[in-house]
Amino acid sequence: MSTRPLRIVVLGLGPIGRSVAKEIARAPDLRLVGAVDPAPAIAGRDLGSFLSEGSLEGMKVVPDLDALPRRRADVAVHMAASRFLQAVPHLDALIGRGLHVVSTCEEMIAASARWPRECRALDRRARKAGVAVLAAGVNPGFVMDLLPAAMSNICLEVRSVRVTRHVDTSKRRPALQAKTGAGITTAEFRRRAKRNEVGHVGLRDSLLFLMGHLPLEGDVGEERLRPIVAKRPVGKGKRRIEAGRVLGVHHSVKAESPSTGKVVATLELKMAYGLAEPFDEIRIAGDPPLHLRFEGGVSGDRATVGSVLSTIRFTDGAAPGLGG
Amino acid sequence: MSTRPLRIVVLGLGPIGRSVAKEIARAPDLRLVGAVDPAPAIAGRDLGSFLSEGSLEGMKVVPDLDALPRRRADVAVHMAASRFLQAVPHLDALIGRGLHVVSTCEEMIAASARWPRECRALDRRARKAGVAVLAAGVNPGFVMDLLPAAMSNICLEVRSVRVTRHVDTSKRRPALQAKTGAGITTAEFRRRAKRNEVGHVGLRDSLLFLMGHLPLEGDVGEERLRPIVAKRPVGKGKRRIEAGRVLGVHHSVKAESPSTGKVVATLELKMAYGLAEPFDEIRIAGDPPLHLRFEGGVSGDRATVGSVLSTIRFTDGAAPGLGG
Repeated sequence: MSTRPLRIVVLGLGPIGRSVAKEIARAPDLRLVGAVDPAPAIAGRDLGSFLSEGSLEGMKVVPDLDALPRRRADVAVHMAASRFLQAVPHLDALIGRGLHVVSTCEEMIAASARWPRECRALDRRARKAGVAVLAAGVNPGFVMDLLPAAMSNICLEVRSVRVTRHVDTSKRRPALQAKTGAGITTAEFRRRAKRNEVGHVGLRDSLLFLMGHLPLEGDVGEERLRPIVAKRPVGKGKRRIEAGRVLGVHHSVKAESPSTGKVVATLELKMAYGLAEPFDEIRIAGDPPLHLRFEGGVSGDRATVGSVLSTIRFTDGAAPGLGG
Repeated sequence: MSTRPLRIVVLGLGPIGRSVAKEIARAPDLRLVGAVDPAPAIAGRDLGSFLSEGSLEGMKVVPDLDALPRRRADVAVHMAASRFLQAVPHLDALIGRGLHVVSTCEEMIAASARWPRECRALDRRARKAGVAVLAAGVNPGFVMDLLPAAMSNICLEVRSVRVTRHVDTSKRRPALQAKTGAGITTAEFRRRAKRNEVGHVGLRDSLLFLMGHLPLEGDVGEERLRPIVAKRPVGKGKRRIEAGRVLGVHHSVKAESPSTGKVVATLELKMAYGLAEPFDEIRIAGDPPLHLRFEGGVSGDRATVGSVLSTIRFTDGAAPGLGG
């Protein structure tokens, strides 16, 4: 690790971006040197007052990369796109500026399988620029893909894998409750689902990654998205959700053996308001069998911010190119 | 991955070595081309009949490396030493023959911290020979060290870590029951403990590895070893252990903060005959807190063999040198 602090630029000041910026400001080995967000309500604001973080006073949020002051930076944290093809031009511009990139783009986990041509081009440019482009995150990025893949390395045989994640959104940020449809009607849920405006991004990508790392063949099917509907009222006062309204989302995706047609891997994700006893669970049917459970679940927001900060530190000394 | 099978030599035909040899013989992408064991009861025997594995008939176990037929091999699996300094001359000889090495030597996990000079020399020789020297195993190697270290990467802050592993040896190989003192007197236990003839090798090494990867400072203390004694008879018939006799071992080791003196990491390992409800558990007090549990525990023997086979496959394309 180098002795001077790594100098960081952040792109995207949504809820995760704001937490990341604050944590960077507080970490003795990191230094925030710029922040970009094009949203009219954010661009131009003083970052210190926007984040209630005194140490950042005097730093203005700029609307785009070109408006950044010409201070040297080492790493850009990209938190401005969930979809890989939206992220590509951002990543390209950051590589062009000679910055390592850490991205929370959900679709990066399986990008090399889904968009091999774009990935090869990014990889080539990153190598040439001598920078690493790394994905960070916990889902996708750890609980439902990387961790079961790592566990499979201690198995002699893997017959099937099942990963289940239950998240209680009542304890999470309001943006996540909105994103999972808390309180809307099922008709509205269907409308938003058609426009990809509700639910989690990246579950099928997690399974694509996992199948690329398991000693198993499996064709990854389409993702299924259903609303979780309140059978009785949930919550109190302003935060009460009536019976019949949506509490959240239930995503699922499977992989089937091309030879036997049997299901060899299943990912199940429920994110709902008031979901009882959140947990994450990984079951590997194999030799040996493995049954792992995170009691209480892995807190998505804090763990994502944690993953971003760890990945920022990994850029120091990382091999150039598009990494995992 | 290469298209022709990797050719493997195994060194050491104890219980794990025998399982590894059998699994290599059965794996379509691996080929066993030699076996070494100096034990008078094993050297010279036909490997096929020794392992009841027809496909290995005609292959003789040789007493030392020099007696191996001059067939080309790619990887040597070293399962002949728990202590690093005993392993060094073996590793040296294998590197000298241009073989990648996968070793189950328990002390390899923290060897670079305990024996930096020897490790630098091995690393130099391995790089020069263009071979990778990799450690494999599940404890040390995964459950109590690598996995909690990997989990800490999704934490913004780690205040303390506690790992607990409970193994029921009644379901494991008799050699492990003997190694953990099942059935002996407490006086005999103390004698054997003084001669390092009882218990698990490598718990302190796991903690040294873990502390090298956590964002925490901690001085690793000495390992404590106590017998677990039967309060009432356990088991039936020939396998009955009377009250007052030893059921197994309880190892523990801690790391304390050099500034506050507080315990920042604890590893607790119980391996005992008839220990109820085996499990592995990792608790990280931090942001976010993480509480992971393997229900039923991770089967040490099968998972170690699984880890060896995965690590053999990793040698193909691995960076030369002494790796992790």
